[in-house]
Amino acid sequence: MQLQNICQVLNIDIKISNDIDIIGLNSLQEATSNQLSFLENKKYLSQLQETKAAAVFVTQDMANKVPNNTIALVCDQPYEVLAKASKFFAPQVAQTTGKKPKLGKNSTIMPNVYIGFDTTIGDNVTILSGAFIGDNVTIGDNSIIYPNVTIYRDCVVGDNVIIHAGTVIGSDGFGFATTKDGQHIKIYQNGNVTIGNNVEIGANCTIDRAAFSSTIIEDMVRIDNLVHIAHNCKIGKGSILVTQTGLSGSTTLGEYVVMAGQSATTGHLSIAPFTTILGRGVVSKTIKEPKKHWAGFPLMEHRSWLKLQGKIQKLIK
Amino acid sequence: MQLQNICQVLNIDIKISNDIDIIGLNSLQEATSNQLSFLENKKYLSQLQETKAAAVFVTQDMANKVPNNTIALVCDQPYEVLAKASKFFAPQVAQTTGKKPKLGKNSTIMPNVYIGFDTTIGDNVTILSGAFIGDNVTIGDNSIIYPNVTIYRDCVVGDNVIIHAGTVIGSDGFGFATTKDGQHIKIYQNGNVTIGNNVEIGANCTIDRAAFSSTIIEDMVRIDNLVHIAHNCKIGKGSILVTQTGLSGSTTLGEYVVMAGQSATTGHLSIAPFTTILGRGVVSKTIKEPKKHWAGFPLMEHRSWLKLQGKIQKLIK
Amino acid sequence: MQLQNICQVLNIDIKISNDIDIIGLNSLQEATSNQLSFLENKKYLSQLQETKAAAVFVTQDMANKVPNNTIALVCDQPYEVLAKASKFFAPQVAQTTGKKPKLGKNSTIMPNVYIGFDTTIGDNVTILSGAFIGDNVTIGDNSIIYPNVTIYRDCVVGDNVIIHAGTVIGSDGFGFATTKDGQHIKIYQNGNVTIGNNVEIGANCTIDRAAFSSTIIEDMVRIDNLVHIAHNCKIGKGSILVTQTGLSGSTTLGEYVVMAGQSATTGHLSIAPFTTILGRGVVSKTIKEPKKHWAGFPLMEHRSWLKLQGKIQKLIK
Repeated sequence: MQLQNICQVLNIDIKISNDIDIIGLNSLQEATSNQLSFLENKKYLSQLQETKAAAVFVTQDMANKVPNNTIALVCDQPYEVLAKASKFFAPQVAQTTGKKPKLGKNSTIMPNVYIGFDTTIGDNVTILSGAFIGDNVTIGDNSIIYPNVTIYRDCVVGDNVIIHAGTVIGSDGFGFATTKDGQHIKIYQNGNVTIGNNVEIGANCTIDRAAFSSTIIEDMVRIDNLVHIAHNCKIGKGSILVTQTGLSGSTTLGEYVVMAGQSATTGHLSIAPFTTILGRGVVSKTIKEPKKHWAGFPLMEHRSWLKLQGKIQKLIK
Repeated sequence: MQLQNICQVLNIDIKISNDIDIIGLNSLQEATSNQLSFLENKKYLSQLQETKAAAVFVTQDMANKVPNNTIALVCDQPYEVLAKASKFFAPQVAQTTGKKPKLGKNSTIMPNVYIGFDTTIGDNVTILSGAFIGDNVTIGDNSIIYPNVTIYRDCVVGDNVIIHAGTVIGSDGFGFATTKDGQHIKIYQNGNVTIGNNVEIGANCTIDRAAFSSTIIEDMVRIDNLVHIAHNCKIGKGSILVTQTGLSGSTTLGEYVVMAGQSATTGHLSIAPFTTILGRGVVSKTIKEPKKHWAGFPLMEHRSWLKLQGKIQKLIK
Repeated sequence: MQLQNICQVLNIDIKISNDIDIIGLNSLQEATSNQLSFLENKKYLSQLQETKAAAVFVTQDMANKVPNNTIALVCDQPYEVLAKASKFFAPQVAQTTGKKPKLGKNSTIMPNVYIGFDTTIGDNVTILSGAFIGDNVTIGDNSIIYPNVTIYRDCVVGDNVIIHAGTVIGSDGFGFATTKDGQHIKIYQNGNVTIGNNVEIGANCTIDRAAFSSTIIEDMVRIDNLVHIAHNCKIGKGSILVTQTGLSGSTTLGEYVVMAGQSATTGHLSIAPFTTILGRGVVSKTIKEPKKHWAGFPLMEHRSWLKLQGKIQKLIK
């Protein structure tokens, strides 16, 4: 979609000599010269100054911080405008045409499975009844997709992956901009989920697709049942997520992180490799030092948590 | 079903000159002149005195509190008797006859979708594979029902609604009466779920049907993944429920309430408009004052919670 | 599979005159004379000394504790070797041959239901669209299986059972052995789930199959929505599990235990009959005394918890 056309629909003034074909939205850090981005929260100003985006939605006072090769798209509510723009790049919910699915050798597709257009299934794959594999999905060799699993369009699943029944891969991330008069405007989630090799995911989990780019599950991750992974999370190699854990958006786990049962993260943070979060722990800040054990909410080192419990025992005696 | 017949089966003595055709059960407040109700907990005595119900299951000592136009059905265990009576009004699990579903213009029903009898689907609706739409359901225009969603019979979904994969709408509320000898007698959940317009519901959520009347999701509500909403809840317009939140039965949220991740309510309470419950907060009493922030369990104002965390930091030093 | 053959593949030296046909793995306590077991954690030494297993994976220093009728299979990492051995006994993900399902009288199987081989369905059963009933499953009389439920192979469901939509019965327990170089080796979950009579299970729950033997749900249990029950749990008769509760592996609940909303257990413990765990309570040790109320994390008697809340109220004033 041409930039001038986008701006016209969104009611934004721009004057440019050469129009640009915009193919999508992205974060300031990842946007390329044919993508749009936005700055709402000024704590990301340094990212604005280094962006490679074609153009950026910004408020008037930030317009002069936009780098030379990027166009400032001045508006009052950049996040709200981004939400409106996201709809322009949303793919179809379900294609009605495309290439027939490509199926590898010795793969078994049981009855009542739907496989979308432009989708590729590897060798020795088993897909059980009731599973839904959307359009433009890739599933690697030897993977097992159990009944009633839903894999939304554009997602990628590696080799030797097991996904248990009822799990949903690639549902929309929980994103919207709320206007001053109380409308919630959906931010279309145009990214996907990519899952590495040798991953096992339990039953009735939800892994949301990214707003832009990918939610990433690296190789050898183990996920228990009823775990929620929000949009744009990245789960490092070999990490373990125990039942009913919930990760908020843009959480990055290093390699071999353990999140015990019913633990959680608030979003936009990262956790160092080999960290263990004990059951019910809530991570609300980035953890930089690797290999430590943390517990509680607010989070504290496990030994402090044990000390606190000792104090509490005294209080109630 | 005639009242005399019901009483005969339930072993309750009544003497009435004109029999009444009873069409169902309801709460004391909502019951009409052809419905039954009950009083178990005496804190609802004032509701008994104002009920419009045809007849009410009550213990002997409450019989004289029943208003003139209502018949007292005296029994030892009103709640247990109500449970037994609920079965008489339970609709069929799945109809075998009825009107063929009515389908609006430009709607897409993908393969392996089941649509029940007496069901109406609006215009421009997309229903993806594996979805189950029960009998006597209504779905408004432009709505999207993702794969493997289940909508139980009698539920109503508005216009421009998105329901993500694996979500269950209208499953039975968690209701039963336990007898003295330890039997759990199911209270059939004969109500439904009604969802307004412009609502988005995430993946693998559960929204239970009401015991009587409706569980209500008002316009423009946003619900994340793995959220549980129990029977007879009412979620006010524009409210936001973040992942893994659980609302117990008969919780009423005002407009624009925010329940952050893994928060919860115990049942039979209401929360004032524009309230924010922070992550993991548990609401166990009605919140009357609007626009405040609350946290913790037991719940306290957010600033008190922050103060408490300061004190705890000192304790463990 | 012959024991000598197993040992050869696993690179374990044994010298036996008569080979043994091994049919599977089991715990030290339950293993019979044609099953293998293992000892990793020395706190189970007394179980080793009383095992009836054909042979046991043990470290060198434990070899002389193995009873006379049991063969010591000496290895450095017994748990890791057990994981490798578990694969030998894993049944097929989905059979391609077997007996056609046997269907009782007056049972209704709606469209788009899959029923596997060697499966038996009782009388007056209703199975709604999108449900998956695996191979070698038994479902008793009068049971209702709602849409998009998945019942994995080998599971047993009693009479008068209701399973609500989206629930998964018999998914693999969360079991793996992690090697020194960071590989997670899957422990194949070769047990099943057995559900008694008059049980009701809510929507989008997950009940994992046992690693060996059975995960057991006894008669008259009531389970709300989004509840997780891990492998090898046993839920006593009449127990009640409220929404979003999570039980870790090998939790045993006595009769009529109540686990309120969002409560949890860490694994390998038991809870005495008629115990009530209040909302959010976390049980991390065995509870021996019946009929008590517990709350909090760490868990304390409910009256202590109330006292603690009083102290906290003073702290923040």
